[in-house]
Amino acid sequence: MKNNQFAIRPTQFGDQITELKEIGFLDKDNSNENDPIKLWKSFLSKAFIEAKTSSNFEEKLRTYMATPDQNLSEYLDSSINVSVQTFYNVALQLLKFNPDVDFSFDNPLKAMEKIQLPIADHRKNNFSVEELKSAWYWLLATHNKDGQNYLDSLAAKGYFISFYGKVSKPMFFNGKTLPVFDPHKLIREVVYVESPQDSDHDGKRDLLKAEILRPYETENGLKVPVLYTASPYNQGTNDETGEKLTHNVNVPLKHKIPNNLNYEDVEYHESSDSLPLARNINGETKKAEETFSRESSYTLNDYFLARGFAVIYMAGIGTKDSDGLRTTGDPEETISTISIIKWLTGDLPAFTNRTDNIEIKAWWSNKKVAMTGRSYLGTLATAAATTGVKGLKTVISEAAISNWYDYYRDGGLVIAPGGFPGEDADVLAEETFSRRLQPGDFNEIKGKWNQKIEEIQKGEDRDSGDYNTFWDARNYHNNFKNITADVFMVHGLNDWNVKPRNVERLWNGIKHNGVTQKIILHQGQHIYINAFRSIDYSDIINLWLTHELLGIDNQAKEIIPDVIVQDNVAPETWTAHSDWANPNNKEVKYNLSGDKLTTENVTSDSESFMDQLPEKDFESYRDDNVTWEQDLIHGDSKLANNQLTFKSAPLTKQLLLDGKINVDLKVASSENLGMLSFQIVDYGKTKRFNVSPTLLSKNSLAGTYDWREDDLREFTLGKESSAKMITKGHINLQNRENAYKVDELKPNIFYNISVELQPTFYKLQAGHQLGLIIYATDFGMTVRGNQNIKYTVQLDQSSLSVPLHED
Amino acid sequence: MKNNQFAIRPTQFGDQITELKEIGFLDKDNSNENDPIKLWKSFLSKAFIEAKTSSNFEEKLRTYMATPDQNLSEYLDSSINVSVQTFYNVALQLLKFNPDVDFSFDNPLKAMEKIQLPIADHRKNNFSVEELKSAWYWLLATHNKDGQNYLDSLAAKGYFISFYGKVSKPMFFNGKTLPVFDPHKLIREVVYVESPQDSDHDGKRDLLKAEILRPYETENGLKVPVLYTASPYNQGTNDETGEKLTHNVNVPLKHKIPNNLNYEDVEYHESSDSLPLARNINGETKKAEETFSRESSYTLNDYFLARGFAVIYMAGIGTKDSDGLRTTGDPEETISTISIIKWLTGDLPAFTNRTDNIEIKAWWSNKKVAMTGRSYLGTLATAAATTGVKGLKTVISEAAISNWYDYYRDGGLVIAPGGFPGEDADVLAEETFSRRLQPGDFNEIKGKWNQKIEEIQKGEDRDSGDYNTFWDARNYHNNFKNITADVFMVHGLNDWNVKPRNVERLWNGIKHNGVTQKIILHQGQHIYINAFRSIDYSDIINLWLTHELLGIDNQAKEIIPDVIVQDNVAPETWTAHSDWANPNNKEVKYNLSGDKLTTENVTSDSESFMDQLPEKDFESYRDDNVTWEQDLIHGDSKLANNQLTFKSAPLTKQLLLDGKINVDLKVASSENLGMLSFQIVDYGKTKRFNVSPTLLSKNSLAGTYDWREDDLREFTLGKESSAKMITKGHINLQNRENAYKVDELKPNIFYNISVELQPTFYKLQAGHQLGLIIYATDFGMTVRGNQNIKYTVQLDQSSLSVPLHED
Repeated sequence: MKNNQFAIRPTQFGDQITELKEIGFLDKDNSNENDPIKLWKSFLSKAFIEAKTSSNFEEKLRTYMATPDQNLSEYLDSSINVSVQTFYNVALQLLKFNPDVDFSFDNPLKAMEKIQLPIADHRKNNFSVEELKSAWYWLLATHNKDGQNYLDSLAAKGYFISFYGKVSKPMFFNGKTLPVFDPHKLIREVVYVESPQDSDHDGKRDLLKAEILRPYETENGLKVPVLYTASPYNQGTNDETGEKLTHNVNVPLKHKIPNNLNYEDVEYHESSDSLPLARNINGETKKAEETFSRESSYTLNDYFLARGFAVIYMAGIGTKDSDGLRTTGDPEETISTISIIKWLTGDLPAFTNRTDNIEIKAWWSNKKVAMTGRSYLGTLATAAATTGVKGLKTVISEAAISNWYDYYRDGGLVIAPGGFPGEDADVLAEETFSRRLQPGDFNEIKGKWNQKIEEIQKGEDRDSGDYNTFWDARNYHNNFKNITADVFMVHGLNDWNVKPRNVERLWNGIKHNGVTQKIILHQGQHIYINAFRSIDYSDIINLWLTHELLGIDNQAKEIIPDVIVQDNVAPETWTAHSDWANPNNKEVKYNLSGDKLTTENVTSDSESFMDQLPEKDFESYRDDNVTWEQDLIHGDSKLANNQLTFKSAPLTKQLLLDGKINVDLKVASSENLGMLSFQIVDYGKTKRFNVSPTLLSKNSLAGTYDWREDDLREFTLGKESSAKMITKGHINLQNRENAYKVDELKPNIFYNISVELQPTFYKLQAGHQLGLIIYATDFGMTVRGNQNIKYTVQLDQSSLSVPLHED
Repeated sequence: MKNNQFAIRPTQFGDQITELKEIGFLDKDNSNENDPIKLWKSFLSKAFIEAKTSSNFEEKLRTYMATPDQNLSEYLDSSINVSVQTFYNVALQLLKFNPDVDFSFDNPLKAMEKIQLPIADHRKNNFSVEELKSAWYWLLATHNKDGQNYLDSLAAKGYFISFYGKVSKPMFFNGKTLPVFDPHKLIREVVYVESPQDSDHDGKRDLLKAEILRPYETENGLKVPVLYTASPYNQGTNDETGEKLTHNVNVPLKHKIPNNLNYEDVEYHESSDSLPLARNINGETKKAEETFSRESSYTLNDYFLARGFAVIYMAGIGTKDSDGLRTTGDPEETISTISIIKWLTGDLPAFTNRTDNIEIKAWWSNKKVAMTGRSYLGTLATAAATTGVKGLKTVISEAAISNWYDYYRDGGLVIAPGGFPGEDADVLAEETFSRRLQPGDFNEIKGKWNQKIEEIQKGEDRDSGDYNTFWDARNYHNNFKNITADVFMVHGLNDWNVKPRNVERLWNGIKHNGVTQKIILHQGQHIYINAFRSIDYSDIINLWLTHELLGIDNQAKEIIPDVIVQDNVAPETWTAHSDWANPNNKEVKYNLSGDKLTTENVTSDSESFMDQLPEKDFESYRDDNVTWEQDLIHGDSKLANNQLTFKSAPLTKQLLLDGKINVDLKVASSENLGMLSFQIVDYGKTKRFNVSPTLLSKNSLAGTYDWREDDLREFTLGKESSAKMITKGHINLQNRENAYKVDELKPNIFYNISVELQPTFYKLQAGHQLGLIIYATDFGMTVRGNQNIKYTVQLDQSSLSVPLHED
C-alpha cells in the first residue's frame, strides 16, 4: 500500500515535547530519562493500554520482533541503544504492517519509504534520547495500514478515556483536536428556529427543527464551534411517492419555437412578499424540552463529536417537524438553511417547542460554524456560503451542486443526473417533503403542497429544457461574489450524478473573493471519501477545522495543498497541485478526419450518423443503460450507424488533461430539431479502477473508543479494460448561443456549435489513444425518442480543444 | 411488506398486566384508569420519550392521524372511546407504516391482516379498558416496518436508560429478555484458559486467550449466562500467505489405483500422546489484568450484550495470543473449543496472563452456555456439541460444516467450496494461523508450523480426493450420538460454500438423541439472517436463549416451529413445517429419454457428451466461472457438446421438492478415469430472488440506545430469468461404492452409479419444467483439466428420484 498524508504539521522540537507532555507520553517519571531503552520502553508501556500489569506488558513485548533474530523484550533487555532500524521494525508492527507482506526486518526503512511513512531525523544509526522523543512524536502522527494515525488508533483502544471529564477545553496534537470528550455523554436536544420566511404562506414565520449534539462540558461553560449539516434527507424521505412523479423519458425531442430572449428576460428577482411578524417571545430558558435518540449522521461528523465540536442537523423547510414547503434549492431554501447559523450567532430566535414561544439561546456556541455534507447537503452548504452569513467560517462542500441547471439540464436539454433518468426538481421536492411522513401534519398542508408541486413542474419546464427564471433562482453562481467563508471542495472526477462542472464553476468562480479555497478531486463517483486508506481525509479536515473554528494557528491553510488530485492510473496515489481547470491552461487542438483525431491539417470531408435504432435494440438499451454505455465506447456493431468515433494516434508520451475540453462542430440535422452528445474516451488496454471503492474492512474505523464506526475502503484496480469514458457533454441544436435563447434550426442546413464538456483531470497514458464519440441519444441522460433523424458533421470545419496540465 | 413473527409468546391477560407494570407502562397513576382515552394517552405519553413536556407531547400527537379526518390530538380531546380502527391507525404509524404506501385510514385492519400484524381481541368496535391494555401489550410485541418489535424500537430510543443501574437481574417481556443493562459499562477482560492439550508439542499445555464482555452488574453479584463464539478468524487472518498456498485447480483428473479398503482401514482413533502436567497454580484473583477495546463481534451477540448475557470470543489453538497450532477442525481443535466452557463450569483453570500462573475463576458465570456463529464458527459449535460437554445447553449453528469431507470433497473428488477453487484444509489453517501476526511469537513457532502445514497437506490428499483417516478425524457425524445440547440450525438453501448436506446430516443425525432441534432454512447463500425485515430472528433466538440459559419457562420449545423455511417464490414468506428431508418422504421417479425427464416407460437409448472444450472457451470459463454457470443452465451453444440436458414436461401443478434427489446412472467413460457432475434446474420464466439480500437501510437496527447497529436487509426479486439451479452433486467414477474405496474403471465399459445430490427444499411452480444436466468439469468446484474424455449414458437404465414434501 501507499500512504498519503497531507495533514502532518511540521512541528518544532520544543512543541513536540510540550504536546507529548500534554497527552501523557512524557511525564515526571520519564521526562528526564537519559537511557534511550528505558525511555522507549516507557512509551511502549503507555501505548499498550490493554496490558494492566508488567507481566502482561512483558508478554506483549515478546510478540514483537525487534531485529531479524530478537524479539522486542529480548532487545530491550540486552541493548543499550535504540537503533533506528529496530525502532522502525517495531513501528511498522505497531502500525499493523506485516513482515510477510509489507516489509522485511532487514530493511524497515526501505519499506517506510515505499509506503511513504515519515522517518524521524537521526544523526547516527541509533536514536539519541531527544531524537527518540521526536521519533515517537512522528510515529503518533503517522497513519497505519488501516488508514488511521497511530494516536487515533490508540484513542480507539481507549487512550483518552482517562481524560474524560477532566478537560475543560479542547486538546491538540500535531495541530489537530483530540477525542477527549466522552461521546456517550453528549447532550442531545431539539430546538425550533424561527426562520424569517413563510414558505407555506400560513401567516406565520416557519419554525424549523434542529437536532443538536454537544459535549457535556458545554454545561460547565465550554463554548464550542458547530459542524452543521443541512440535510433535507435527514428526517426521512418519500421514496414511493417520489418515484411516482418520475418523468417518462421515452419521449421524442420536440421542436422549439425560436425566441429572442436576453439574460434580463430570465433573470430572477427577489420576491417582495411581505413577511409575517416574528412571534412574541413568552419567556426564555436554557434547557431544551425535546431530545432525540439517533440522528441520521455523517460519519465525518461522528469523528468530531468526541473532539470538542457540536454537531447540528437540520432538514429545513418542508421537512418532518418543520414548517414550510420544499422548493429544491431556491432562495427560500437558502434562507431556511442559514437560519440556524443566525441562531448560533444570536441573530435569530429559537424556541423549545412549536407552541409556547419560550426562547432558547445557543448559549454554548462559540459562534463559529462550518457546514459539511455531500450532494444536496454540500449544495446547501454552498448556497449558505453565497449569502455571506456571519459566523459561517468555512464550508466543506462535497459533490455539491453549484447551479441546479447544471444538475438537471445542459445546453437547452433535459439531462438527468446519471443513473436517475426522469428525475427532476419536482421529484426531489416530493422525495424530501418529509412532512408527509407525519400524517397529522400532512393532512393540514396537503392542498398547498399539491399546488407547490404543480408550480415547480411548471417552473422546471421539461418541455423546453431551457434556462429560465426558475433555474436562475437556483443558480448560486449569481451570488458567488458574496462568499466570504473559506471553501473546501471535494468532488469525484467520475461523478455523473452531480457533474464536475458544478465544482469547477465554484472553484474558478471565487478566485477573486479573497477567501481560501481548497479542492480534492478523487476518482470516485458520487461518494464520500472520509474512510479511505490512502488519504488522511479526516486528519485534513481536522487540521482545517481546528484552524477555522477553534482559531488555532496550526498553519492549516499553508500545509494543506490547494489542489489534491487522486491519480487515475496508479492506485493509492494523490498528488498536490496549485490549480485545476485554469482557463489559461495551454490547449492542444485536434482536427477531425475520417475516423481520426489529428493535429495535422485535414481536407474537406463529412460524415453522417442516424439516431434511430431498430426497435429491439432500442428497447434493450432503454432497459439496460450500462450495456448501452459499454457498447457505445467499445464501438459495438449494433451502434455502428449511430455514432461517429475519432481516435488519435497512440500517444508517444503521456498526456495530462486538465480542465474543460471543447468541441467545435459544423453540423446539420435532417429535421428542424436535434441534439448531440459527446464523449471523450481513453482507448488503451489497461487495468482501471473499479467504479466503486472496495470494502477493505467493515467497521474498522472508530472515531474514538466504543463509538460509531465506519468501513475502511479503497479504490482498487479491476480487470483489464480497453476503453474508459473520460468526460461528456450535450447540446440542443436550437440552443447554439446559450441555454435560454432558442434559435431556428432548418433541416439539412449546417450550423456552427461550440460545446464545453464537463471538466476533467485525467492522465492519458503513453500508448493510449484519445477518442471522441459524437452521437445523439444518451440513454442514461437525455430523452429517448428513437427518432428518425440524421446528423451530418462537416469534419474539416470541426475540432476538439484539449487543455493540458502544467505545473 | 409481509411480517413473519414466530417468537410471539401467547400470554395470559394477568401476565400481560404484570409485565406492563414491570416495564413501567402501567403505574400507580394509570393502573386504575377507567377512561380508555386517558389510558391510551398515558401509554402514548410514555412511548414518546423524546418529548419531555406536555406541550411537546401534544405537538407530537398532532402529527399522527387518528381517523381519515382527525389528528390524534383532536381525537383524544373529542372522543370518549378508543375505537379499534383508530387504535390501529395510530399503531400502524407508530410501527412506521405509511398511509401513502402501506395502509388506508379507512380500513387499517385490512392492512394489519395483509402485513400479518397481530390484532388484539375486542368484543366491540371500541376497546374496553382491559382490551386496550392488552392491545398495547401486543403492540409492544409487534414488529415495525424496520424489522424490530415496537418495544425494541422504544429501547433504541432510550426507553430503558432509566433502568440502568437499578436492576439486579434480567427483565422480561413476552418471554424475551430486555436491554436493561448499560452496554457502555460492560466489563471487558482477557483470560488465558489452560486447555488439556499440547498441540504445538512444546511440553506445556496450551494457553488460549478468551475475550470476555460481561454486564457491570456481575460485579455486584449477578450471575450471567454466556454466549460463546469460537471464531478462528477473530484475532485476524493471513489473507496473503493463505492465498499463496491456494492450489492450482487447472490440473487433470488422475487415474487412481483401485484399493480394497473398509471403513475400519480409514477410521480415526484418538491419539494416545501423553499430556504435559497442568501448571502449578501460584495464586488466585478475581480481577483480570488484561483488557481489550473492540472485539471482532457478531451483531447477534451485540444485541444480547445489553440483555444480561456475557459474550465470549475465543479463537483457539494457533491464533494470536494463544498457544498451539491450527488443524482445521480435528479433535485437537474441538478440545481447544470446549476448554472455555469447562472453565465457565469450573472444570478447567484460566490465568490472568501467560507467565505468572495466577488463576482467575469465572465467578460471575451461571454455568450455562450457548454457542453462536456462522460457517467455521458454527462448525466449532457443532463440534463442541458432539463432545456432550457439561454446561453447553444449546448451540445455534449457522451455515455450519458437520463433516469437513463434505466441505472440501465429494464422492472421491476434490470439490471446492463455491467461489473458492483451490482452497483446502491447509489454506484455511494458514489463513487462520494468526500467531503469524505477532512476529515475536511466530519466530518461535515457525519451524513447527511449516511442519504442520506439510502434515495437513499430506493428510488432505488432494491427489486422490478420497475419504481417509485425516477426514474421518474431521467428520463430526461420528460423534453425533454424544450430542446432549439442544441444537438450533440455520442454513441457506443456496449455500454452495458450506453445502446443505452439512446441515441435513446434522438434522437427520440427532433425531434420536432426545434433544430439541430446530432449523431455519433460508434462500440465501452463506450469510447471516439476523437483520432481515421479514423474520423475527433476533426475537426467536432471544426466546430460545431466555429459555435455555436463563431457565425461564417461556414455552420456547413449543412456540418456535421445528422447521421454518423461507419460500423461494413469494418474497417475505416463511412457513412452518414439522420436518425436512425426511428419509421417508415419498418420491417421484423420472426416467430419461432423449432430452426428456418422464414418468413413463422409455425405450433403449444412449447419449454421449465430451468434457473437452476448445482452448479459448476453456480459458474464458476458467477465468469467469459465473458466465460458465449461466451458459450451462441456459444451454449455451458453446457447451452443447459438453452436457446432456433433460427436462420434464411443464408441470400441471406445483411440486414441492423436499430432501435429497438421487441420480442413478449407467455410464461409461472413454478413459480409465472420469468424473460426473449433476445439476437439477428449475426451468421457467419468472422473477427470482437476487442472489444476495438487498440493503434496505444502513445502521437502522440498534440492539438498544446508543449502541452498535446493523444494516436492515431483505431478499428482493430481481429481473426475470428463465432458469435457476436448484441443487447439484458430483462423483468420481472410481468411487462408485463410497468415498474411500477406489474401484477400477475400464474405458468404454458401462457401470452403475448412484449419486445423492445436495438436499433441498424447493417450490417448483406450475408451468415450470424440472431439469437435469449431466456434465463433467464443474468450473467452480472440480479440477479443470480440459481432458479429452467422452462420457456415454445408457438412458433407459438411468433415472432420477425426487423426494416430495408432505405436510
